[in-house]
Amino acid sequence: MIVYSVSVLVKTGFENDFITATKVNHKETRKEMGNLRFDVLQSDENPSLFELYEVYRSEEAVMAHKETRHYKDWRDTVAPWMARDRKGTKYAALFPRADEEW
Amino acid sequence: MIVYSVSVLVKTGFENDFITATKVNHKETRKEMGNLRFDVLQSDENPSLFELYEVYRSEEAVMAHKETRHYKDWRDTVAPWMARDRKGTKYAALFPRADEEW
Repeated sequence: MIVYSVSVLVKTGFENDFITATKVNHKETRKEMGNLRFDVLQSDENPSLFELYEVYRSEEAVMAHKETRHYKDWRDTVAPWMARDRKGTKYAALFPRADEEW
Repeated sequence: MIVYSVSVLVKTGFENDFITATKVNHKETRKEMGNLRFDVLQSDENPSLFELYEVYRSEEAVMAHKETRHYKDWRDTVAPWMARDRKGTKYAALFPRADEEW
């Protein structure tokens, strides 16, 4: 499993726009064969801070995601609302193991 | 749903000790009624950097976790291996919604 944890800081006032756009991306990404999770989180301490927690079966699945219409639409739509560059960290999943429940 | 994303930087050379201790905490935490996930991740870029992605049903479930023997044992065991203080960020989950699959 490959996990991308993406930190997103949105300009004040654009939180609801970001949530609306990201809801679509969440819904469509979860339909991809290679996607296992797409959790959309909002910080308790700072409502302008979001985390996207994305789990894919393989590198190929990540690349396929980046080519989808919903990803590209989302990326272009939210771009002007970013307060800073998105920061993605890539992880390998240790537990659960790949053959366990995800 | 309440999500804690905990960033852990381990002193060089203690990565495997940390993984072994955290495997037990993962396994036991997943048995808690109020816990939905406990993903243990290792950064691709920096193998000393880990993320614990923990999802609980409620604040009560978080508090119950903190009182368990396995949590306290883990906390005390890994303490000398920390290269910096653990940094936990608390989030509310927007999607999936609470009534959807987790």
